[in-house]
Amino acid sequence: MVPILTIVGKSDSGKTTLIERLVPELSRRGYRVATVKHDVHGFEVDREGKDSWRHKKAGAVATLIASSSQIALIQDVEEDPDLESLRQCYIRGVDIILAEGYKRSDHPKVEVHRKALRRGLLATKEEGLLAVATDEPLEVGVPCFELDDIAGIADLIERELILPSRRCEERLSLRVDGKFIPLKPFVEKFLREALRGMLSSLRGCDGPGKVEIDIS
Amino acid sequence: MVPILTIVGKSDSGKTTLIERLVPELSRRGYRVATVKHDVHGFEVDREGKDSWRHKKAGAVATLIASSSQIALIQDVEEDPDLESLRQCYIRGVDIILAEGYKRSDHPKVEVHRKALRRGLLATKEEGLLAVATDEPLEVGVPCFELDDIAGIADLIERELILPSRRCEERLSLRVDGKFIPLKPFVEKFLREALRGMLSSLRGCDGPGKVEIDIS
Repeated sequence: MVPILTIVGKSDSGKTTLIERLVPELSRRGYRVATVKHDVHGFEVDREGKDSWRHKKAGAVATLIASSSQIALIQDVEEDPDLESLRQCYIRGVDIILAEGYKRSDHPKVEVHRKALRRGLLATKEEGLLAVATDEPLEVGVPCFELDDIAGIADLIERELILPSRRCEERLSLRVDGKFIPLKPFVEKFLREALRGMLSSLRGCDGPGKVEIDIS
Repeated sequence: MVPILTIVGKSDSGKTTLIERLVPELSRRGYRVATVKHDVHGFEVDREGKDSWRHKKAGAVATLIASSSQIALIQDVEEDPDLESLRQCYIRGVDIILAEGYKRSDHPKVEVHRKALRRGLLATKEEGLLAVATDEPLEVGVPCFELDDIAGIADLIERELILPSRRCEERLSLRVDGKFIPLKPFVEKFLREALRGMLSSLRGCDGPGKVEIDIS
């Protein structure tokens, strides 16, 4: 499972700036980073008049633009997807996901804090607060970093999230008609080992790689 | 498998306009439509200065924006993905995919033709040409429709692609580390039936729904 870190903080605390500085630092260390931005106000990402914009405007539930270097997908959803669904459905081939917002999720959090904004943090250690990036000293029971200590925060992300995820046992997840099916640990392990066993004799399937199976 | 129809034609023949008119017609008939636009020139879909644009600019290999009604994903790819990969990786919950361009793919095609453009079609019946939307009569061995006979073209799409795909036996597809593993028919059927059997005793998995399994 790719680990998810949420960057939380009050409005204008500097969440985007922190992400903007963490991404190149983590990339420089050889990690592939995905970011997620939670947009509560809705957004319009495509450009009026472009062919893809015209497709979407005509009522396509999903419109995809593909080139040799990038793809862009705009897809209708019926409810605000949680980070697990986004990770499972859309994000591939990365080592870490940095999400901006999603302060109510259960994922580990780094909070950005500024003295000039009203005191008090949004998250507590019990709610997954891993560290604070702050311009004033705080006593909150988790490590505090200066706002521009990007290397320090990247060290923490590497140590607490990226490296442990590589040591983790793999997990199987199952969706039917787009809905996650919760699996008891025994069932999850049974399915995973049965599948790995069945696949092991196929060429190209004998390694530890990520397996995706789709029946439709 | 969701069927794919490519809309091909010379530059300025009216491919986008045809898609723009087919999408609402098919939607009105109760089908969910996805569209794909092949952009050979590359594109920039996000808006300069927006948070998500800043994430991507900082070097994220994937940036996702999520709201309660839409998600948008911008993802780096190493080579131009084919329509099968796009269908498998990104497009969910639709009945038909209309792709603009991709004239070299093997999928069924409708070609848009205009007398004013140079004569001759891009595709032949042998290359999957299903019909032509044209402003002059042509003898090409496939049905010809007037450019604004949207109902006629939608009838053809429904009859030749959407309805047959519903009668089709389901198929299992397998990817390891993002690469499709070709499966002999016996192996595909064995894996699919073994998996359906294992899943059939789980709550929520006993119907004919689309199954997605991910081990990582």
